[in-house]
Amino acid sequence: MNEFELIRRYFRDRSTGPGVLAGIGDDCARVAVPTGHELVLTTDTLIGGRHFPEATPAYDIGWKTLAVNLSDLAAAGATPHWCQLALTLPTADEAWLQDFAAGFYDLADAAGIVLTGGDTTRGPLSLTLTALGLVPSGQALSRRGARPGDGLYVSGTVGDAGLGLQLALGQRTTAQQADRVLARLNQPVPRLTLGVFLRGLATSCIDISDGLLGDLAHIAEESGVGADLAVEDLPLSAALAALPAAEAWPLALSAGDDYELLFTVPDAQAARLNEAPVPVSRIGTITDSGAVRVTVAGQPFSLPVSGFDHFRP
Amino acid sequence: MNEFELIRRYFRDRSTGPGVLAGIGDDCARVAVPTGHELVLTTDTLIGGRHFPEATPAYDIGWKTLAVNLSDLAAAGATPHWCQLALTLPTADEAWLQDFAAGFYDLADAAGIVLTGGDTTRGPLSLTLTALGLVPSGQALSRRGARPGDGLYVSGTVGDAGLGLQLALGQRTTAQQADRVLARLNQPVPRLTLGVFLRGLATSCIDISDGLLGDLAHIAEESGVGADLAVEDLPLSAALAALPAAEAWPLALSAGDDYELLFTVPDAQAARLNEAPVPVSRIGTITDSGAVRVTVAGQPFSLPVSGFDHFRP
Repeated sequence: MNEFELIRRYFRDRSTGPGVLAGIGDDCARVAVPTGHELVLTTDTLIGGRHFPEATPAYDIGWKTLAVNLSDLAAAGATPHWCQLALTLPTADEAWLQDFAAGFYDLADAAGIVLTGGDTTRGPLSLTLTALGLVPSGQALSRRGARPGDGLYVSGTVGDAGLGLQLALGQRTTAQQADRVLARLNQPVPRLTLGVFLRGLATSCIDISDGLLGDLAHIAEESGVGADLAVEDLPLSAALAALPAAEAWPLALSAGDDYELLFTVPDAQAARLNEAPVPVSRIGTITDSGAVRVTVAGQPFSLPVSGFDHFRP
Repeated sequence: MNEFELIRRYFRDRSTGPGVLAGIGDDCARVAVPTGHELVLTTDTLIGGRHFPEATPAYDIGWKTLAVNLSDLAAAGATPHWCQLALTLPTADEAWLQDFAAGFYDLADAAGIVLTGGDTTRGPLSLTLTALGLVPSGQALSRRGARPGDGLYVSGTVGDAGLGLQLALGQRTTAQQADRVLARLNQPVPRLTLGVFLRGLATSCIDISDGLLGDLAHIAEESGVGADLAVEDLPLSAALAALPAAEAWPLALSAGDDYELLFTVPDAQAARLNEAPVPVSRIGTITDSGAVRVTVAGQPFSLPVSGFDHFRP
């Protein structure tokens, strides 16, 4: 199967949908952007053996390639519309591609996003997606805007994907609800409806991809604020709650791949969070200290690392 | 230098410009798309050792990563506006990045395109760019629309980059105007002004990235037509014209990386091409035969290969 047959078989016929004027099959795709909206752009690369274990099923790689980008759109309060996929494969393995496409389109169809184009090349396994979303003009969420006194919130539970990675790598042999924990690693569900709900409510928002503390530091830096975070308030799944705190808290604070939203809301608006489409938990408060302080029972809590850096020596 | 310092130093401060509401520094970039336009999208990946020799200077890699995508926008008749870059590097080599950024921004500034965001990861050298352009609604060029009787045209000269690749790989030791030929390989100039000029004039258009014959086959297939092409009418540079025809013509017909535009214009409109912003040459005629026929002095001419396929066994 050559490059062009490969594209035709798995991707081309599905590159139609709302706003798509021309999909796969030309030098460029073309889409119609409605008036009154801002176009929201995000790009994430996943590399085999670095962003996911080499043994990850192709279905999960397809799902996750899209999910991590949709999570960025969610953090901006945007709705997903179109995407471009750069697929670099060591070989044109048809079974692998079929599974990859199944995972990709299962999430794409659920999220209402159309793959409009991209590129296929041969090389070490690598996936880069650029996702395009829309948000009504002036309503996008960003990392900037957190103010001292705002409550600090997180959706769902944190640390599960980190636990899942330990299972996937054989660093840990058992966990409660192991299947669910592995699904958090391999098939994260982007918090799109929550992102839309937070428009006009959250003063800042980011998705947790590099670890909660690392991403909180981005909010603090971009907003020019500090934050106090209470470790005992972190929302933990049954799987993490079953671990000793000395294992669970570091996972919750610094493991990557959660794809929950971390956001700030002024106290005067906090009651509106009762109607949030997914569970959200208050885990701290924004301060004017300029520093992120983590406490347990009021005492300082420290961690060896704080977020993933691809170029750390 | 870590990932975030790297982004800040080389890219972040330059992510502002027309239509950019938010550039690098958040989960997503945001841009304003003017009414009355279609948004044009294209994505191309370049992999070290595959799309360019490993020894290619970083400046040239930066330039070419953008140029190959701008060439796709040119083929659609679009003007470039914004782009997202996924940069995968084996190491965070500061000197390399400085040169890469210099090449990238020299072309970006000349073309009026803003790098709004992207991703940096560690891994085998790979660059994926998604470029976004605009075209007035209904005026985009595409591969579809060539009609029997239309003239077949190409801009500039073809085969130079193929000759340059032979020099770069040491397969050939000398050529006339070797510096110019190597520049065609390493610093292609996208035909953006020609693409805009061809709006409402060309019935089909494609950029030559995989070799003239391979890309002509795309026009033929997508338009449902055939084409007759006369080898002796191919526009050759002095460097190619100095070679024996048996060497020059295969380069002109099937070597990749030309980044010229291949397009069709009805005879009734052909006189308008006298005002084209770059030289264009008629090299054949669209037919209803359904096949691409190549002739020299009226006799069939055949080539061993026809275009680059990343997954050819």
